[in-house]
Amino acid sequence: MTEFLNDHFEQVRQAAERISPHIRRTPTLCTDLDPTLRLKPECFQITGSFKARGAFNAVLTLAAAAHPPPGVITVSSGNHAQAVALAAKTVGLPAVILIPFDANPAKVAATKALGAEVIQQGITFANREQRLREVMAERNLVLVHPFDDWDVIHGQGTAALELLRDEPDLDVIAAPVGGGGLLSGSTISAKHHRPGINVVGVEPAAAADAYRSWKSRSIQSLEASPTTLADGVRTMSIGVRNFEVMFARGLVDEIVTVSEDEIAGAVKVAWSRLHLAVEPTGALPLAAYLTGKLPAGRAGLILSGGNANLGTVATLLGRR
Amino acid sequence: MTEFLNDHFEQVRQAAERISPHIRRTPTLCTDLDPTLRLKPECFQITGSFKARGAFNAVLTLAAAAHPPPGVITVSSGNHAQAVALAAKTVGLPAVILIPFDANPAKVAATKALGAEVIQQGITFANREQRLREVMAERNLVLVHPFDDWDVIHGQGTAALELLRDEPDLDVIAAPVGGGGLLSGSTISAKHHRPGINVVGVEPAAAADAYRSWKSRSIQSLEASPTTLADGVRTMSIGVRNFEVMFARGLVDEIVTVSEDEIAGAVKVAWSRLHLAVEPTGALPLAAYLTGKLPAGRAGLILSGGNANLGTVATLLGRR
Repeated sequence: MTEFLNDHFEQVRQAAERISPHIRRTPTLCTDLDPTLRLKPECFQITGSFKARGAFNAVLTLAAAAHPPPGVITVSSGNHAQAVALAAKTVGLPAVILIPFDANPAKVAATKALGAEVIQQGITFANREQRLREVMAERNLVLVHPFDDWDVIHGQGTAALELLRDEPDLDVIAAPVGGGGLLSGSTISAKHHRPGINVVGVEPAAAADAYRSWKSRSIQSLEASPTTLADGVRTMSIGVRNFEVMFARGLVDEIVTVSEDEIAGAVKVAWSRLHLAVEPTGALPLAAYLTGKLPAGRAGLILSGGNANLGTVATLLGRR
Repeated sequence: MTEFLNDHFEQVRQAAERISPHIRRTPTLCTDLDPTLRLKPECFQITGSFKARGAFNAVLTLAAAAHPPPGVITVSSGNHAQAVALAAKTVGLPAVILIPFDANPAKVAATKALGAEVIQQGITFANREQRLREVMAERNLVLVHPFDDWDVIHGQGTAALELLRDEPDLDVIAAPVGGGGLLSGSTISAKHHRPGINVVGVEPAAAADAYRSWKSRSIQSLEASPTTLADGVRTMSIGVRNFEVMFARGLVDEIVTVSEDEIAGAVKVAWSRLHLAVEPTGALPLAAYLTGKLPAGRAGLILSGGNANLGTVATLLGRR
């Protein structure tokens, strides 16, 4: 076991303690689909996704500092926005969230309802990082990056930590990969638990930058914002810290990709046979499992969230 | 505490031990909807509903008798059929299930897949009890009644037992009521736990025989098979044993009814905000909660199952 892994695992362990009064310990489920399969349904996490784990770890750490910042800022069109808004409200810090102007209005409303200031005017998926730097500088706010942040990574690692406490004998852990926050956190917990465990990231074929980064051993970016059902993993590239954990240090064994039809099929199986109303991004590991793309052995799937667009899912379910 | 309640609770406790190798201990969930609300999602139970609890208790008890029967029989168009089929297969007893000829083909196929012999020819919702008696006598089979059977009642009581072990301070327990197996079992566990706990049955207004039985203090029957989204509670009347527990002994405090629109609304909330893909019957207690029909206090809702008709749910979710 390397010092790198030991150090980061210790921080995941501390994150678990720090966030435990604020997040839910989601259950580990077994279903009729396969008695050896285990599911970690983060759709039941507070705010509906695992993002609350990393957001609370980062915001609680900032708030406990000798000189807390005047507020936090982030950029997100979805689950991370709500998670940061709730965490900031909990500790009494102002939160500013940049959301692209054409984002789902329901998610914007949910973020505002949690007390955050939302900036949408003139924000696009392409210019949002640039605008973020500008607003940060203007207002002296501290960034809670959605994935390229150690506190966020350590917080996200607590989901796999709980899963492996419930089911220590798993052979495989699979999680969605977008920016890589969840997957890098998960593998810190998993590889510290047992170096031989297989850790697999699952990505839409339509947004396969993590797959290409894994193959090429360097960070690869998408050329344009991808169109995929899995709207939680549309990030253009993984982060520097995520790359280090997953690929430079070699802690992730494999990235597999799934097609849009495979994602749609997995959503339908989740809702109809597992009775879990996950969002398409949350169904990515299930899509890999159902299509035989995971390594052999007892698998634990981290189903990342449940904030689905109802219209989309109604269409998927109604389809024969 | 009466001797009646003590005796029956002791049998629920024994049922919990007996069935524990075969059923799942479902989790108790807390959601963003209301931090004081607790959910017992029996959609995650083996075969997708609480029915496995009662069926395993009854079939394991029969199989352990000095002279086990040559097989078991029951009548059901849904969850009880699959539960009895699985329990019988587990102990190696043949199972015969009478299912009305016009039942959902998916449920018939699921029951057959579990190894049961299914009789559908000439079976209607109206004549099924009569045909059951005939086949029972011809083949010397023992009936596992869906609700009017003490072993079944004691098995169903284990869901509330688990819920109250997780959350001892609940003020209210709400469960769907059709024949009354789940509700009578639940109240045995709940009233033994604390006599002051409020136990409420929830029924579609379109099938309000339990409500009328409670009000009149005598078993009332529906005149015709009701049309309701909640197809798990279409029974024409509650059972004799269920009546005794719930109303003659006064162990159920109240029956409330919900409209079809209220059921539809609850299904939508369950799938979209709780991330639980329950069947409409399973959403009955949630419908009562959402419409303010439950007594004040911390409530635990027993969400009975998840075997929804996908087409129906797709329509509900797509509706604005």
